[in-house]
Amino acid sequence: MKKSLASDNYAGILPGIHEAILEASSGHETSYGHDKYTELAREEFTKLFEKNLKVTFAFNGTGGNILGISCAVNSFNSIFCPQISHLNVDESTAPETFTSCRIYPLACNSEGKIEAEVLKKSIIRKGDEHHPQPAILTISQPTEYGTLYTTEELKSISKVLKQNDMVFHVDSARFFNALSATGLSAREMFTDTGVDIITVGGTKAGLIFGEAVVFLNLDLAKNLIYKQKQSMQLPSKMRFISAQFHALLSQELWKKSAAHANVMAKRLEAGLLTIDGIQITKPVETNAVFVIFPERIIAPLQEFMFFYMWKDATGEARLMCSFDTTEHDIDAFLNKIKSLI
Amino acid sequence: MKKSLASDNYAGILPGIHEAILEASSGHETSYGHDKYTELAREEFTKLFEKNLKVTFAFNGTGGNILGISCAVNSFNSIFCPQISHLNVDESTAPETFTSCRIYPLACNSEGKIEAEVLKKSIIRKGDEHHPQPAILTISQPTEYGTLYTTEELKSISKVLKQNDMVFHVDSARFFNALSATGLSAREMFTDTGVDIITVGGTKAGLIFGEAVVFLNLDLAKNLIYKQKQSMQLPSKMRFISAQFHALLSQELWKKSAAHANVMAKRLEAGLLTIDGIQITKPVETNAVFVIFPERIIAPLQEFMFFYMWKDATGEARLMCSFDTTEHDIDAFLNKIKSLI
Amino acid sequence: MKKSLASDNYAGILPGIHEAILEASSGHETSYGHDKYTELAREEFTKLFEKNLKVTFAFNGTGGNILGISCAVNSFNSIFCPQISHLNVDESTAPETFTSCRIYPLACNSEGKIEAEVLKKSIIRKGDEHHPQPAILTISQPTEYGTLYTTEELKSISKVLKQNDMVFHVDSARFFNALSATGLSAREMFTDTGVDIITVGGTKAGLIFGEAVVFLNLDLAKNLIYKQKQSMQLPSKMRFISAQFHALLSQELWKKSAAHANVMAKRLEAGLLTIDGIQITKPVETNAVFVIFPERIIAPLQEFMFFYMWKDATGEARLMCSFDTTEHDIDAFLNKIKSLI
Amino acid sequence: MKKSLASDNYAGILPGIHEAILEASSGHETSYGHDKYTELAREEFTKLFEKNLKVTFAFNGTGGNILGISCAVNSFNSIFCPQISHLNVDESTAPETFTSCRIYPLACNSEGKIEAEVLKKSIIRKGDEHHPQPAILTISQPTEYGTLYTTEELKSISKVLKQNDMVFHVDSARFFNALSATGLSAREMFTDTGVDIITVGGTKAGLIFGEAVVFLNLDLAKNLIYKQKQSMQLPSKMRFISAQFHALLSQELWKKSAAHANVMAKRLEAGLLTIDGIQITKPVETNAVFVIFPERIIAPLQEFMFFYMWKDATGEARLMCSFDTTEHDIDAFLNKIKSLI
Repeated sequence: MKKSLASDNYAGILPGIHEAILEASSGHETSYGHDKYTELAREEFTKLFEKNLKVTFAFNGTGGNILGISCAVNSFNSIFCPQISHLNVDESTAPETFTSCRIYPLACNSEGKIEAEVLKKSIIRKGDEHHPQPAILTISQPTEYGTLYTTEELKSISKVLKQNDMVFHVDSARFFNALSATGLSAREMFTDTGVDIITVGGTKAGLIFGEAVVFLNLDLAKNLIYKQKQSMQLPSKMRFISAQFHALLSQELWKKSAAHANVMAKRLEAGLLTIDGIQITKPVETNAVFVIFPERIIAPLQEFMFFYMWKDATGEARLMCSFDTTEHDIDAFLNKIKSLI
Repeated sequence: MKKSLASDNYAGILPGIHEAILEASSGHETSYGHDKYTELAREEFTKLFEKNLKVTFAFNGTGGNILGISCAVNSFNSIFCPQISHLNVDESTAPETFTSCRIYPLACNSEGKIEAEVLKKSIIRKGDEHHPQPAILTISQPTEYGTLYTTEELKSISKVLKQNDMVFHVDSARFFNALSATGLSAREMFTDTGVDIITVGGTKAGLIFGEAVVFLNLDLAKNLIYKQKQSMQLPSKMRFISAQFHALLSQELWKKSAAHANVMAKRLEAGLLTIDGIQITKPVETNAVFVIFPERIIAPLQEFMFFYMWKDATGEARLMCSFDTTEHDIDAFLNKIKSLI
Repeated sequence: MKKSLASDNYAGILPGIHEAILEASSGHETSYGHDKYTELAREEFTKLFEKNLKVTFAFNGTGGNILGISCAVNSFNSIFCPQISHLNVDESTAPETFTSCRIYPLACNSEGKIEAEVLKKSIIRKGDEHHPQPAILTISQPTEYGTLYTTEELKSISKVLKQNDMVFHVDSARFFNALSATGLSAREMFTDTGVDIITVGGTKAGLIFGEAVVFLNLDLAKNLIYKQKQSMQLPSKMRFISAQFHALLSQELWKKSAAHANVMAKRLEAGLLTIDGIQITKPVETNAVFVIFPERIIAPLQEFMFFYMWKDATGEARLMCSFDTTEHDIDAFLNKIKSLI
Repeated sequence: MKKSLASDNYAGILPGIHEAILEASSGHETSYGHDKYTELAREEFTKLFEKNLKVTFAFNGTGGNILGISCAVNSFNSIFCPQISHLNVDESTAPETFTSCRIYPLACNSEGKIEAEVLKKSIIRKGDEHHPQPAILTISQPTEYGTLYTTEELKSISKVLKQNDMVFHVDSARFFNALSATGLSAREMFTDTGVDIITVGGTKAGLIFGEAVVFLNLDLAKNLIYKQKQSMQLPSKMRFISAQFHALLSQELWKKSAAHANVMAKRLEAGLLTIDGIQITKPVETNAVFVIFPERIIAPLQEFMFFYMWKDATGEARLMCSFDTTEHDIDAFLNKIKSLI
């Protein structure tokens, strides 16, 4: 199909990744993660977060998130998350099925972020057996709107959580876009802000498949391997995920690709700002642009280069750039808008 | 690591497969299975089973099996399976977690097969709400011992199941080895014997990852897509699984590779039969050889070319051949045995 | 302890009930509901709702509600309910544990009711496997605020549900208060408004324990007996619940007791209205009065006759009358308020 | 219906119990176990087991067992139990639904008991994430055959469990029959043998309803109250269960009633031994007699005084005596047999 601005999982494989797969295929390797590529990838993650950590590799984002979360909850707990989060609106009942917990959505601000004060007021009825007991908050960084929590915001949230014996999980499907956009190291953004568990997205970063589940808080990883098997997220040929992550990190493939996607989004934003009658609705901080188009141009524009409508009510469209979005794609898209308006 | 006889998931990627991945990566594709490669792979499966069917693609064997089974059960049901089956001994509590059902293991005969008479006697207390209600039987073909149910045996089992309103599921992680060994078509082995759902293994056939879940009984697929998302087995980049299956089937890559693995097992068996003090314990019908070695040679032999002990109690070892096992590997292994004895 | 206005489950046994228990104890009876008292109670329910129905008896409200709901959902569904509902805030994660479904809370109006228009707008993404699929709405009648849906309101809700293939469940822990307050028959209030399943509360009506789960929609009761056993809500001595319900209905014990509790609430309301500085916050339609007291009198008043604070934020107190609340209790409570103000 | 030998839950209420219910109904009491009767009953249990313990009260046996067990397991564990146990054959899939664990049945000896050696050999693959991890053993005392583990047998089992970090749960639906038959104190039988959790049956002891769940191991009760609410086993009017247990224990009502039922079983056994052509198949140690009747007399005998066939295959019948079985009942039953033979 034609190139699109639909999702970063529409794109193919990032150059360099396929070679890593082939290399990992050259001989026999022990299954279920007891192989040398997984060991090497683990070392890269330790370097990345600058911390003694535990990391495993899962098939997909839903699986990685729920595996991480399941290690931190008991079946009578609630899982706090932003109202707009993927976990709340796009992962079916997978969280309930694997944890029995209550999903407890919190109101977000206009940038799609949970504020520490809102979180604080939402932690109620601790010790009351009739009410699901708050145990964990999971947020997305970048958010579903492509915006970014600052390290101060992350620390404020973390502080409230620690004060209430709650765990801090981050779903970072677009982890590399977040690092690239801010120039922060993984240590600065996650390790030092008090995050306990983080799902590092590989699929949307250009891998064939695979996510990393990183435990910065080692206590929570005690039952990880059992939970991973139980949740059907333990790959027999784990090496084919870890080898991809190893290449991504050790060769710093992500630096160029994530920066590029972010730059494309800024180029798109800049172009849109020059066109009358178009409203950009969220700050463009990573590789997503949220925009309201005049209704009559939506269909022909989607026909030209496909994208998803985010919310039918507000008429917001979501334009996602990826590592393979070109300047030419952006310019052609902008020109098409101009010709339609 | 060195070549081994440990498991067919120790091997790398079957030649021809990575080319298919690359081809599927050449442009953008819609996610979650709405892409052209998935469509093409579906057509291949329809041709293979010679039946109007529904097929989807999941990440791994445990996921594929439980996804298929979950479409056929209610939470108060029991899932019948052979005592020795992977589902019973090697998939943690994933079946219970996702279905709430009772796992109900049945005694096998010496070849690792369920007999229709045993099945029949095990179906008890239908309509009694105090007892988990029998709903499905899942068997492996080939069995965990590498043996094969004949079509007559499959039909006898199927008949008992139909008489009791039960569903017939087959876990066929080594599907292609089964077809190749018997010369039967998928239609003859599965469609015509009354199988309802079958998991066709890709991982052990030399794919990077991925299994197909095939519904020959369309009624059971009514909620498939919902269950697939709920079970965290809906790949966003499904095309990278389906493209592999498409190559495997359309180019008939499996025919050579599966036949080769089976031939290697027969070569191994033939060689072992010439050595005194060694006992082959199961009929060698696909790519596995079960054998009792003198205890003193096990450790050095594993050091030379690794394999797993199947059962510590009986001292049985399991030797698995794969598409990349060579005549030279087999001969070297046999020579090592001779030198040790 | 002293009499209170805390909850109708603080009260003892309604006169006439323990005699029924004794009578049911006079000989042997078959267990698990195959006894004559259960049969007799079933006949009473059929008369009450004037419809061919299926009814069973469960231990408690949470159990009765979840048993009823579980018969109408698949594990990938969402369960709609009012934000303030008991199911949402006071039943731990029992709903998720037993159904795997998402709890999907809807905003209520000031009387604690779901409006048909709000419901309609909340039914989104039907057929989209990524989102929990709407399957059922459960409301309380009377609501948690003691208010009552009119039959027109119930019919409007029912219409929206039917249009969307959703099931209508009513948690009626204070069923008899609702009937008594409106003078409507069970048929008029539930059968004719399109309710599918209703939990009829016994515990708060003065029984020792026990709830009835009534299926007006017989199709949904197909797996009832299996789900009841699975949910640990199948009493071996079911006769001791059904005998109580039989007495309550056949002797119309509920008529006097429910009317009395409602009258006491109106007496309380009338008295409160004569006192300055006190604000009644919800219409008094059954046996509950919601009221804001001056903060300084709350503690001494609770000391005098205990009641629960409903919401710390608003300072609302909930005063529950029960069958054993006397005019003297109400008057003493009012006098105490006057003396404190 | 006529008196029977079907089950001790066919009988009515033990004299003295109904009075306790009435007494607990005399005033208002706080709900959910925060009442004085629950406090009093707790003291009785502490005296009974001569140990600082935690006890709560649940609705029924299945609920009590699963509540207790759920406090000791993680979702990837297996629950060991005798093949013939109620949990394995008569509680639907309630265990899986509430714990996600694997039920792992062990072979019993001819008296229906698990032997320590069998247990020991069954504890396999600890630390292997692919296999459900052994966490708990639950046995019945008395067993389903009415036989009794000796304290030596209990200690041997306990020792194996402790060596493997496993928890010891006892389902003691007929707890009082066990104490009465042996003359042992609860301390001698349970506290001193290393039992961690025990469900003490009230329903079969002549209560209207209710079971006690006793934690001799306090560490395991950490999440008890949350699990109890989550499992729908937290009675709002808990006092009506605890008041019954309080009467049963403080007035020692159980001593006479349990002894009587046991004596009736011995009388029945003695009588049966004098009749040719009848085979008693299990030692008669509490209130059950297992017997093989000539097939032709079964139907008329059941017609005369009902009892259940235990196993159709062996033709074994189970005759249960209860507190209200009279000498006259037994003699009439024996005479009927004689007249039929």
